[in-house]
Amino acid sequence: MWIVNETNFTPSSQHHKETIFTIGNGYLSTRGALEEGFPGDRRATFVHGVFDDVPVSVTELANAPDWLPLHVFLNGERFSLATGQLHSFERDLDLRSGLLTRRVRWTSPQGCTATLVFERFASLEDEHLLCLRCQVLPEFDGSVEFRASLNVNMDNEGIVHWTHIDQRFHEVSGAEPVVHLSSRTRNSGIHLAMAMRLVGAAPLQPEFWDVPGVPTLCVSLPASRGNAVEITKFVAVTTARDTTQPVEMALERVTLPANWDQALHAQHQAWQQIWDRMEVTIEGDDEAQLAVRFSMFQLQVAAPRHDNRVNIGAKTLSGFGYHGHAFWDTEIFMLPLFTCTSPRIARNLLEYRYLTLDAARAKAKEAGFRGAWFAWESADSGAEVTPTWVPDFRDRKKLARVWTGDLAIHISADIAYAVRQYWLVTGDDDWMIACGAELIFETARFFASRAGWDESRNAYGYKDVLGPDEYHDHVDNNAYTNLLARWNLTTAGQVAEWMQSSHPHKASVLFAKLGLEEDEFRHWQHVAANIFLHVRSNGLIEQFDHFFERTDVNLEDYEPRSRSMHVIFGIQAANEYQVLKQPDVLMAQYLLHDAFSAASIQANYDYYTPRTDHTYGSSLGPSIQAIIACMVNKPEEAYEHFMRAARADLRDERSNAGDGIHGASAGGVWQAVVFGFGGLRVSENGWTTQPRLPAHWKRLTFRFFHRGRQQVVTFPGK
Amino acid sequence: MWIVNETNFTPSSQHHKETIFTIGNGYLSTRGALEEGFPGDRRATFVHGVFDDVPVSVTELANAPDWLPLHVFLNGERFSLATGQLHSFERDLDLRSGLLTRRVRWTSPQGCTATLVFERFASLEDEHLLCLRCQVLPEFDGSVEFRASLNVNMDNEGIVHWTHIDQRFHEVSGAEPVVHLSSRTRNSGIHLAMAMRLVGAAPLQPEFWDVPGVPTLCVSLPASRGNAVEITKFVAVTTARDTTQPVEMALERVTLPANWDQALHAQHQAWQQIWDRMEVTIEGDDEAQLAVRFSMFQLQVAAPRHDNRVNIGAKTLSGFGYHGHAFWDTEIFMLPLFTCTSPRIARNLLEYRYLTLDAARAKAKEAGFRGAWFAWESADSGAEVTPTWVPDFRDRKKLARVWTGDLAIHISADIAYAVRQYWLVTGDDDWMIACGAELIFETARFFASRAGWDESRNAYGYKDVLGPDEYHDHVDNNAYTNLLARWNLTTAGQVAEWMQSSHPHKASVLFAKLGLEEDEFRHWQHVAANIFLHVRSNGLIEQFDHFFERTDVNLEDYEPRSRSMHVIFGIQAANEYQVLKQPDVLMAQYLLHDAFSAASIQANYDYYTPRTDHTYGSSLGPSIQAIIACMVNKPEEAYEHFMRAARADLRDERSNAGDGIHGASAGGVWQAVVFGFGGLRVSENGWTTQPRLPAHWKRLTFRFFHRGRQQVVTFPGK
Repeated sequence: MWIVNETNFTPSSQHHKETIFTIGNGYLSTRGALEEGFPGDRRATFVHGVFDDVPVSVTELANAPDWLPLHVFLNGERFSLATGQLHSFERDLDLRSGLLTRRVRWTSPQGCTATLVFERFASLEDEHLLCLRCQVLPEFDGSVEFRASLNVNMDNEGIVHWTHIDQRFHEVSGAEPVVHLSSRTRNSGIHLAMAMRLVGAAPLQPEFWDVPGVPTLCVSLPASRGNAVEITKFVAVTTARDTTQPVEMALERVTLPANWDQALHAQHQAWQQIWDRMEVTIEGDDEAQLAVRFSMFQLQVAAPRHDNRVNIGAKTLSGFGYHGHAFWDTEIFMLPLFTCTSPRIARNLLEYRYLTLDAARAKAKEAGFRGAWFAWESADSGAEVTPTWVPDFRDRKKLARVWTGDLAIHISADIAYAVRQYWLVTGDDDWMIACGAELIFETARFFASRAGWDESRNAYGYKDVLGPDEYHDHVDNNAYTNLLARWNLTTAGQVAEWMQSSHPHKASVLFAKLGLEEDEFRHWQHVAANIFLHVRSNGLIEQFDHFFERTDVNLEDYEPRSRSMHVIFGIQAANEYQVLKQPDVLMAQYLLHDAFSAASIQANYDYYTPRTDHTYGSSLGPSIQAIIACMVNKPEEAYEHFMRAARADLRDERSNAGDGIHGASAGGVWQAVVFGFGGLRVSENGWTTQPRLPAHWKRLTFRFFHRGRQQVVTFPGK
Repeated sequence: MWIVNETNFTPSSQHHKETIFTIGNGYLSTRGALEEGFPGDRRATFVHGVFDDVPVSVTELANAPDWLPLHVFLNGERFSLATGQLHSFERDLDLRSGLLTRRVRWTSPQGCTATLVFERFASLEDEHLLCLRCQVLPEFDGSVEFRASLNVNMDNEGIVHWTHIDQRFHEVSGAEPVVHLSSRTRNSGIHLAMAMRLVGAAPLQPEFWDVPGVPTLCVSLPASRGNAVEITKFVAVTTARDTTQPVEMALERVTLPANWDQALHAQHQAWQQIWDRMEVTIEGDDEAQLAVRFSMFQLQVAAPRHDNRVNIGAKTLSGFGYHGHAFWDTEIFMLPLFTCTSPRIARNLLEYRYLTLDAARAKAKEAGFRGAWFAWESADSGAEVTPTWVPDFRDRKKLARVWTGDLAIHISADIAYAVRQYWLVTGDDDWMIACGAELIFETARFFASRAGWDESRNAYGYKDVLGPDEYHDHVDNNAYTNLLARWNLTTAGQVAEWMQSSHPHKASVLFAKLGLEEDEFRHWQHVAANIFLHVRSNGLIEQFDHFFERTDVNLEDYEPRSRSMHVIFGIQAANEYQVLKQPDVLMAQYLLHDAFSAASIQANYDYYTPRTDHTYGSSLGPSIQAIIACMVNKPEEAYEHFMRAARADLRDERSNAGDGIHGASAGGVWQAVVFGFGGLRVSENGWTTQPRLPAHWKRLTFRFFHRGRQQVVTFPGK
């Protein structure tokens, strides 16, 4: 169960397949579009940090110049799935190595038949290197021609980001010639260079077609029935984010691999090391096994391995959805995998938040608050890039207001939570002192200043917010927000105490830098101790003020349905019902499980589960719902929710996988296995597990690192 | 004075020069970008009617695939003004023939020197044909290579409109091979085909570089010092708007011209016919002479000669400004030239309005009115395409509301006015009955239903409108609007009477079709007779209700300035001052001159002239101001205003000529000469003139057609 497989070509699902056949290496990712192109494809390569301006959404990852084009001609006829006759088609993504293989047997309109095998991977050994091979087994005599291009003429769904600078053919003594293409983003001015080199079984004398923006190398080889011919295309990608000399660096990197086999061997070794750190095996459930590996693979290819100035977008690097912007999806959904298996990556991601602290401070200050209010949508600088007004698609004289950037203040606590979790799992005190503590203090400071005193309740609270359940906006005292804010304030105090006692000099330096004094710490604890929460005697928590007074609905009355309750009710009306887009109170109980009794979790589970739009609400919901179901010991119910998350991309159950991988769902799949079915919990006292396996699972094995040492946990089935 | 000339190459003004060196033939226009490209150029070809969707502005003319690319290599070195050494540069646009010539002497980085002459024109004989020739006179021995491409990878300032369909190399027995490129607009799905053919002094064997989207033909010729080599590139352009078989049609058309000389000869003949119809000569003023010819030329190349489904955009076909949308600029500013010199073109333009009547009816109906309310900005269907919300340039997260589509109701009367003027000048009764009358009735019907009864004044009026002076929006009883509406209602009655008496059967058919009965005609006259207008005893008309109460300003206090008063005051604040963007009352007095005494015109001239932002207000203003100045017998003042219009594009006095030709200003230049300095007036009783020549003009001669007969008028200077 290592292979994501497709056995026929369906044009109507090509965007979905492009997403799930995305390859990458943490520096860039490339969607699974066909080398030769297909009408209507969404070919895209996204390079971390290469953002460019765009209307409304402010900035987006620019779809990089295309490195894929490899056109094959059989006796002069262009190979294309849009013409001729397709006899067989098979596509495999090998999750062990990130190798994408396509095998096609095809007859041209004039009758030339051949089997074509395309293979590609993004090198993990050298993250600037991309490798592509095509083997052709002709069933005719004549010629096979390969035309390999780089193409600057790419766009983001109609928006152009690139200006062509130049290109050149370089003779290389004793080796294949190299071609480079140089380009620059139109507004942000980021210089990107690509270099291309073709390697054959025998030395090649490629012809160069110097068409501006589309440098092309052509190789024509004699073909005879039954004798395979092949070509390897190496491409190197560099940007001004990596070096002051992108062209020179690309030219150098593209000449390094000796040949396909050597590059692929290094790839296998590099991926083996990753899998050795994170491997999860589920015996007795092939679909779940594949899904968890696929989820881990897709997060790894999107995760910055050597760059702390970038984060992971909600759709990873695999599609145009959400423009490459990062949300709380990173810290709450994706990060645990890295924290537990690849802490260096987790640190890069958290350092991105550390490096954007000034932008978060500016956002808080502009709104009249103190501390760090992180952007709901974050891109290169950390400034808020959530659109505020978007055209109303139903009436162009109107505008629709997007409120998340104004109201979803929980993002700051989510980041603090991830910092604390990283510290708990890794024990990385040095990093906590250097970066983590400041993040926790500044977010606590924000929640202390954002809290309002409610005279009638004699308590602090947060008015006019938006919690994880986005069906309800402009609410007061969202339980998730209040609970996470309380946790943030409390934890800041604990971290401060720990620093003062264990690293008093560094503590005083940091406190002085931030202007933190005892009064402020005391105030944080005062706010934390008095944050409002409406809890019924059975432990049931009201999601926000007056939630229980809203109209109750039996969701079963609306089945079967294929749309979200948001659409069914209408955006405004959804506010009036007790229907959730995703777990909200339950989300908080999962994250802060120590703070709740089993009875309280059960009461909330019983109340909120039937009121949640599990099927068409948020894609972030099902994995968390699965974990909560495990917490109340309902592994079969958990499994149902888990499989919804597992299938979100592989089966395109929400019909939007074409926009890119659901990164949060992928992270949730791993969490559901490890924290849900495996019941792993890490605390200051170490780690514990509590298996809750579905009945048909024969064995679950997972591994993680605790304080630098790998732990392997295995549970037999029932 | 037939040549627009440039004698050096200044990269910082390349966008301005691209605009003024635009060539075209009424089917398409191409900006004067360099064949070989230059960094930052705005290369563009716009084909009438080829609109595609765009955010915010709804739809825009798609920048067509590029037919220009012709790269020249001297001993392998690419010719480019961005490298090497430029010894001389000269560019000429010959207005007699539409031939654009560039002559360059250049030395390559490695030291090859040559004189290169590029010539191009858009054929008037076959509007699908584009012709480009390059002659190279080498001062070295070796080779000259030409690479000619078509390029589908074009965008509209960052927005992509094209999808590549296919391309092919076609052998042609006994002639040069032909290459075609086939593409389709992404949203509107308009198929566009181009075909390319290279012709040399001797038969050519071009090599074909089959790079998808950029088909390229390469020809390498031996070069020897002092012996010129040349190549001609013919391109044919067709779309699905012309034929069901665009590729086949393009392939046929591109093979028709025998050679450059034959095609150019036909071009001279075709243009001679146009100039014979419209020639204006101004002796004693070379700048004015060139400007009026340039203005007529630029309007002719943008005017649809064989298509009544399109109009002329505010920036003609020469730039990205206003997205190819048509405004009242056509009817009030550009149309008189065509009505008087090329009535078939005028009819095409008016028929566009006739064919979009249903969209105008729908706009009126949606707003609760009757009749035809034409779109303020009109594109392919005639539906309103004025953007409603545009990004606020001061804060990219905000949007600003654009009100013209809601308030500038005068557009309907402007169209009716142009219909009536066409009828008056041409005497085309058949067309008036077939199309014109319906336009006048339906616009009258709109103004009758849009009028509101004002109890306190015992009069009809129009509240919440925007007149020509756009510094003042949301005003009541704008004088221009009220006067034109009154004229429209009155004229509708006159036209109805004329039809009933002269063509009673056709009248009753049309009335029945429109549901027009005597009651409604009577109501129109009742409204017309009672429309409010605030006129002081000296004939001074108040621009709108309470205008005279707004803050008065001495514009001289703000001199010298280089920005509009709109910018200086701020958009909202400008509303509060008695400062005009362009003539408003005076505009109405020009159009409806018969309705006003000389004293009233003088009074309004004296009041409004010093309160108008002539220099940086609307580019539509100066030419009209010039005409009014002639009406009050101030030809020297008129000349000052006239030259502002004459220089708007040629001298880029507003620094925005790079966005395209100011079409209304160009039309206004012709009107200022003929209706202003020449004083031509056409009425039911024939035509009259009243010369008001500037002192330094030695002679003014102009010609026009009155009821099918050409009239030539000539006035000596003083």
